[in-house]
This record gives sequence, C-alpha cells and structure tokens, in this order.
Amino acid sequence: MADSKFYQTSEKLTLDQIAKLCDLKLPKNIDKKRIFIDISSLDTADKNHVSFLNNNNYIDKFKSSNAGACFFRKGFLKFAPKKMVPLVTDDPYHLFAIIANAFYPPKKITSGLHPRAHIESTLKFDKTVQIGPGTVISGNVQIGHNTQIGANTVILSGVTIGKNNYIGPNCTIGYSNLGSNVKIHNGVRIGQDGFGFAMDRSGHLKIPQLGRVLISDNVEIGANTTIDRGTGPDTIISEGTKIDNLVQIAHNVKIGKNCIIVAQTGIAGSTTIGNNVIIGGQVGITGHLIIGDNVKIAAKSGIMKNIDNNKTVGGIPAVEIRDWHKQTVIIRKLVKKRFNEK
Amino acid sequence: MADSKFYQTSEKLTLDQIAKLCDLKLPKNIDKKRIFIDISSLDTADKNHVSFLNNNNYIDKFKSSNAGACFFRKGFLKFAPKKMVPLVTDDPYHLFAIIANAFYPPKKITSGLHPRAHIESTLKFDKTVQIGPGTVISGNVQIGHNTQIGANTVILSGVTIGKNNYIGPNCTIGYSNLGSNVKIHNGVRIGQDGFGFAMDRSGHLKIPQLGRVLISDNVEIGANTTIDRGTGPDTIISEGTKIDNLVQIAHNVKIGKNCIIVAQTGIAGSTTIGNNVIIGGQVGITGHLIIGDNVKIAAKSGIMKNIDNNKTVGGIPAVEIRDWHKQTVIIRKLVKKRFNEK
Amino acid sequence: MADSKFYQTSEKLTLDQIAKLCDLKLPKNIDKKRIFIDISSLDTADKNHVSFLNNNNYIDKFKSSNAGACFFRKGFLKFAPKKMVPLVTDDPYHLFAIIANAFYPPKKITSGLHPRAHIESTLKFDKTVQIGPGTVISGNVQIGHNTQIGANTVILSGVTIGKNNYIGPNCTIGYSNLGSNVKIHNGVRIGQDGFGFAMDRSGHLKIPQLGRVLISDNVEIGANTTIDRGTGPDTIISEGTKIDNLVQIAHNVKIGKNCIIVAQTGIAGSTTIGNNVIIGGQVGITGHLIIGDNVKIAAKSGIMKNIDNNKTVGGIPAVEIRDWHKQTVIIRKLVKKRFNEK
Repeated sequence: MADSKFYQTSEKLTLDQIAKLCDLKLPKNIDKKRIFIDISSLDTADKNHVSFLNNNNYIDKFKSSNAGACFFRKGFLKFAPKKMVPLVTDDPYHLFAIIANAFYPPKKITSGLHPRAHIESTLKFDKTVQIGPGTVISGNVQIGHNTQIGANTVILSGVTIGKNNYIGPNCTIGYSNLGSNVKIHNGVRIGQDGFGFAMDRSGHLKIPQLGRVLISDNVEIGANTTIDRGTGPDTIISEGTKIDNLVQIAHNVKIGKNCIIVAQTGIAGSTTIGNNVIIGGQVGITGHLIIGDNVKIAAKSGIMKNIDNNKTVGGIPAVEIRDWHKQTVIIRKLVKKRFNEK
Repeated sequence: MADSKFYQTSEKLTLDQIAKLCDLKLPKNIDKKRIFIDISSLDTADKNHVSFLNNNNYIDKFKSSNAGACFFRKGFLKFAPKKMVPLVTDDPYHLFAIIANAFYPPKKITSGLHPRAHIESTLKFDKTVQIGPGTVISGNVQIGHNTQIGANTVILSGVTIGKNNYIGPNCTIGYSNLGSNVKIHNGVRIGQDGFGFAMDRSGHLKIPQLGRVLISDNVEIGANTTIDRGTGPDTIISEGTKIDNLVQIAHNVKIGKNCIIVAQTGIAGSTTIGNNVIIGGQVGITGHLIIGDNVKIAAKSGIMKNIDNNKTVGGIPAVEIRDWHKQTVIIRKLVKKRFNEK
Repeated sequence: MADSKFYQTSEKLTLDQIAKLCDLKLPKNIDKKRIFIDISSLDTADKNHVSFLNNNNYIDKFKSSNAGACFFRKGFLKFAPKKMVPLVTDDPYHLFAIIANAFYPPKKITSGLHPRAHIESTLKFDKTVQIGPGTVISGNVQIGHNTQIGANTVILSGVTIGKNNYIGPNCTIGYSNLGSNVKIHNGVRIGQDGFGFAMDRSGHLKIPQLGRVLISDNVEIGANTTIDRGTGPDTIISEGTKIDNLVQIAHNVKIGKNCIIVAQTGIAGSTTIGNNVIIGGQVGITGHLIIGDNVKIAAKSGIMKNIDNNKTVGGIPAVEIRDWHKQTVIIRKLVKKRFNEK
C-alpha cells in the first residue's frame, strides 16, 4: 500500500476492467465484477490486490502469496495458490505495469502560471500549462499543452517544449527542442556548452558550441544528468530512450530509439548509438564511435571501438561478453595456480 | 588559521576545557589555564594552536612542529618536541575532531522565513526554523525545530523533516521522511521516480514508483547526489550513514547504519547494504544483492555477487582483496615474461 | 549554419581579416576582400564558409568539400579542391577556433540586477554586472566588472568573484574566491563541506572544514561538477584548467595550470595534480598522491600511486600505457589458448 500522504489518487478496478486494459481472456467461472483496490508485491499482497511473478527467484513467495489476482507465465500455473485468480500471459511485468498505471494515474496538475514564476512578459501559454514558483522562462520559449514545469527551473531563450511534458524542479534547459511526453527529472542540465577546446599548453582555446540538443517524444532523463549541446551538429536523443541519473552525454552524441542507459554512464563526443541499445551503469564510451542496433553493454565496461549490431560486450576494454567471462575465469585460475605453487 | 571572511566564530579554550571535552588526563605540572586559540596542522601550528598526529607519514613534521599542544598515540611520546603539551590518546583524530568542533561551533543561524521564500500558506513552523530566499515549500510539509533550509531549494508536498537539519541551497526533496541532525549538501535530489520500466523494443512502459525515501538521524548526503524513491517498498538510509558527492542510490536500496560511501559510487535497485560498510569511490554495485555488515569495498570495484559479513573486496568483478592484488601481480609478471621472450 | 533562434550574432569577415586574426600569410593572386559569412564542417560547408581539416580520417570529406576556405597542414595541399582557398598552418584547429570565436563573439549581455534577484541590500556592483531572476547574493560578496550570474544561482556570504566571469543558472558557490574569465556551467556546486570524518563504528564525527576553494583565471567548470572546500588548507584550481561535467574534486586537492579533466572523473582528498595534465573520463585518483606535470591518464583508469612528470598511464591499477596495452593483449591470448585447448 502506497503512503497516502504521497499517493492519493488510486482507483478501484473490476476484474473485467483489468482484463480489458490488458487484452486478456479471463478463465471461465470467475466473478468478473470482483473489485481490486491496489497492486502489491507477492509477499505483501492480500485478496484485494493484483500482483505479478516475473522471475524464478520469487517462486516460493508466489506459492504462498495471498494476492487476489496475479500475472504470470503459463508454466507457473501449477504452482499458483488455489484462491489466486490466474492472469496468464507471456509478459507479466508489462501487463502489471499497465494495471499499476491504471491504479495510479498521473496526478492531475493544477494548471496555471505561479505568481512567483518569472515569465518573459511577451510569452503566452495555453491555460493547461503549469509553471511553478521561482521558475524562470526566458524570451521566445514555446511550451505545449498540458506541460508541467517544476519550481526554480530555468528555461533559456528560444527553447521549444512539446505537450504533456513533465520537467522537474531545479533544472536548466537551453539551446534545445523537446518533443512530447518527455519526462525530465530534478536537476537535469541540458544544452550547456560542450567540452571543446583547441588544446595548447599556453592556454586552451574554447571552440564556440553552435549546435542544439534535440530530444524526441517519450524520452525520460534522470536526476542531475547532463547533456551538452552540439558544436555545430546537434546532440540528439531519439524517441522512447530512457536515461537514468547522473549520466553524461557529450556534444554531438546521437542516441537511437528506445535505448536504456543506466546511471553514471558517460558517452564522449560525436559517438553514435543505435536503436534498442542497453547500456549498464558506469559504462564509459569514448568519442567518435559507432555502436550498432540492439547492442548490450555490461555495467562498468569501457568501450574503445565500434560495436556491430546485436553484440553483447563487457570489460575494460570491452570484448564479447563470453570472452570477458573467460578472462575473469583465467585470471582467477592463474592466481590459484601460481600462488599455490610457491 | 581559517579565513575570517568565512569563519568568524572561533572561541578560545583553556587546556583544562580541552581535557574535559576529551575526557583526557593532563600531565602534572602543566598550566591548566593556558589558553589555546585555534587548531592547525603540524607544520603551520604555533604555540597557541592544538594539532594532531594520526599517521606515521607525518612523523618528521611532528618532530619539528611548533604546536602548543598535540593529540598523538603513546608510542610517539619520545619524538614529541619539548615545548609541546602532549595529549596522549588511542584515538588522536577523534579527539582532534571534538576540539575542532569546539573551536568552530556551527554558525548560529538567523531564524525566520525569508519574505522571498514561497511557503504554502497553511503551513506553520516553529520560529527557530530558517528558510532561505527563493525556497519553495509545498503543502503538508512538516519541518522540525532549528532546521535550516537553503535558498532556492524545493521541498515537495508531504515531506517530513526532523529537527536540527541542514539542507543546502538548490536541493530538491520529495516523497521522503527525514530524521534529525540530517545534513544535505547543495544540489542533492531525493525522491524522484526510480528507473523502472517494463522493457519492450516497441517502447518501454514506466512502472509507477509508489514508495518513499526514509532517511534516519545523523545521515549526511553529499552535493549533487541522487536518491530515487522506492517502487513500493521504500529506499532507506539508516542512522549515521555518510554519503559523499555525486553518488547514485537507486530505488528500494536499503543502507545500514554508519556506512561510509565515497563519491561517484552507484548502487543499483533493491540492493541491501549492511551496517558499518565502507565503500570506496566510483564503486558500482548491481541490483538485488546483499552486502553484509562491516564489508569494505576498494575504490572502483564492480560488485556482482552477494558479499558475506566482514569481507574486504576489490576488482571488477570484485574478489577478496588479497586475490585482487595477486591478480594485479600476476598480470604484470606475465607482461614482463612474455614480452621479454620475444 | 547555426540555428538563428539560438545564435543571432554572427558577423561577416573578409579573407584579409581572417588572415590578420590568425597571423597567416595568404597565397598571392587571391581576392583579399572576398567575404565569408560562417564556419562549417567539411561536408556541410559551401563557398561562403570557412572549414578545417585536423585529422586524416576526414581526408575524403576534405577532397570533396565545397568550403570556400579551409585551414589545414601543408602536407594536405595536394588533396585540396581547386576552388578552396588554402589556409596552410601547423595548427588548423587552433586557428579555426580563433575564427569561430570571431564569427560568434560572446553575446552582449543586458547588464543589470534583475528585480526578482535577492541581493543583500548593502552590496554595490558595477553597472556592467548582470544578475538573473531568482539569483541570491548573500552578504559581503564582491563581483567584478562585466560578470554575468545566471538565474536561481546562490552565492553564499563572503565569496569574491572576478571580472568577465560567466556563472550559469542553478549553481551554488560558497567559501570561494574566483579569478577572472572563469566560466561555470549550470548546476555546479563549489565550496560545500568536504567528506571528512573521524570514523568510528559508534558514529562518525565530522571534522570541521575550514578552508576555501580558490579558482584562478580562465578556468572552466562543467555542469553539475562538485568541488569541496578544503579542511584548513584550500582546494585550488589553477589558471587555465578546464574541467568537464559531473567531476568530483575533493577537499584540499590542488590542480595545476592548463589541465584538462574529462567528465565523471573523481580526485580524492589532498591529491596534487601538476601542470598540463590530461585526465580522461571516469578516472579515479586516490587521495594524498602527487601527479607530475604533463602526465596523461587514459579514460577509466584507477590511480593508486604517485606518477612522475611526463608519464602516460592507463588501467586499474594504472601502469605505463604500453604495459596496459600489453596486459590487454596477453589476457586475450590466454583466453584464446586455454579455451581452445579444451
């Protein structure tokens, strides 16, 4: 049960509504009007809750769960408690996410421009736009329908922001165009100068950074992440890509669609990342590389060369994931052998 | 000597006061009313200063130090300069910290709610609370006695903050309960959505994040660190734990008491850390792990498995620290051997 | 072509003006009054643009470029398209930077203190100073001629800021003195307490942090970077050093002149870095070390020992760069050999 101090808006759903939202067929002889009031994990759920099993590790909790209904794969049906309504699917976590979003729809925001916001006087916004106290919106900014901008955030001159965006408090956004349904968490920095110098021991000379940051629809960007603007070309984050906290994206980086980039990863300048790439935490990718589609990169890897489509890699410098595991095994064996010989 | 532009509040202490604060016996035949005016390092101290020796590396500086009094361990007594008052103890750095805090007590804050703060009109705070200009306090927030909240910080709806807390400028705190004597530095982000998606190449579906962040007494959190709220369970930081700058704590992480977590470390979702764990800088810990009590993790390690109580580990992937050192030695030897053979 | 929504101030330059700015001799028989209107990359440039070639990888783009003029090294003259004005130099990127800055001079700022800034009433600034809305300037702060401070930034009491500085929005700066021509990007945190404790399992005792941060002329500091103040000695960043985003600089660190420190690097307490040091991304350097002049450190390295002047190192723990490459080769060979034997 979510703390009602923070989460007030849950709704009730009948089994029939749940089935329709998920495009699922319910077993026969089941009361389709049965009401569910919340989601919960297997071990804390009661008969009024919907839960899910996505992982063999939780099979014991599943067997003893009191959840009233549960999403799981067909093979687990034989372990399901008798009283549990089985919601059998190939993708339990995805359907659970749909129902979780139905129980906890996004908060209805109180629209309006806060009197303590500073908005350049010539700007006009749709009355569904919400702008918090202390927020600063500079000249020539456009903000789409139903977009919310948190307190003390600063939007610099010329930025275009699409509809249904959430921009958290204390962010800074400049030199950028943002699509729709973009979610930007607290303290994100977008569009500052990239780190480009004509290096010289007598003093490094800054190269003017004349590009933008272009962020497509459905992108999410985690807290305190930094995305520099391009030097002339743009820095690009494509549709559906999700970026975690404290990530560094340098100038001219281009990231494809539906990528996942975990916290504290850094991508150096002018590197191109394909579509559906998954990058673990604390990965470093050097500049001017091309990373193919569907590539997976293990956490903490160091990427120093291009990677072909569909490869999974790990290590510093990264190699194919099997080879990385073999490296680990061999070094451990050597330690055992050599140090025991003495 | 601290720059008086920044540090104005030092006080004078007699030797007797110093001894009492530290619960130390002074040598006989010493003027207990002798006055000390400041702390200083061994090489910059003069006769009116108190210093300390905690480390063999500084023995030469100790021998030639002009410090009027000095904390050190018994074994160093023979090296102490004649004019130095010996403050012999098993824990010189700890006692030095006590005296340093006595010379430089926390600044007395000017309490009051700044007229340029935006405070939800229904909120009432104790008159010892200090809230800076531009600070935004949303509805239903509670703030304890003697707590100070810096300029342009944003506290979201429903947050509870204990007494004697210091929250720096430009922070964002939501979906959280904070204990007492908590210190939160500039630009910290607490309580944003965790990075949880039902992943799907046709578009990743966000899982609603319905938990909180619970922070116990005496916790310190460094600048620009990010702590995501739980997905349903809470993210928990237990009493006395100190977290450095730019650290990432993901959703559902639970950290025990009196841990030390150095800068740029990242802890992935649902991992549990025991008590008195020391984690070096830039460590990465994957999700769903259990790290035992009193574990020590070398800087830059990658932790991919559970770690038992009292272990010290290092490397990527991490192994026992001795084995990590052996790995390093063996690889260096191999390089020497193979490349010389050619 | 830069987006005119963001970059309005480009100027026209004649070939003669370009030559004078760069101290270059033009070939004879060239129209010195020919006008150029912009810079561009080799593949997007047209006859009115100036471009550059700095790297063999772009030789094909050079051969087919339509750029009206181009900086390159003598050896490439034979590949230059006929219509291109050759601007032959040993340092094409440096001269390109000079011309880029001439085409895009820094924006003329509208000076003045924004009415929504909160400025301690006793402070007086030169009328060339610009302070944004929501910015908070505490007591006893000095700000030099022509300095610009972004919206919602917080400058704490006693800070001295030189002339011609740019400080971005949403920064926090305390306990610091800044030189001239310093550039500080969005969300930077300078001068908070360092991470210093007398550690004890029954509770870690904070050591008062009584030093400052001293930042010299021409330093640049990237977005969301954190620089802690010293414990008694100061934290020092010397002239001309450039620091990227999300870097951690701990208390008492001293960094020499004209260093380059790439994103997400961390430098632990009391380490000293020489002049002209280049540190790649995600490097970790432990505390109390001395890193010599002209050292180069490969990205993602872990530095655990002092490094002599002029060395280039890499790896975890770092060794000379050749030896690191050898380590990589040997481990790969071992994997091939051992796993094929089976």
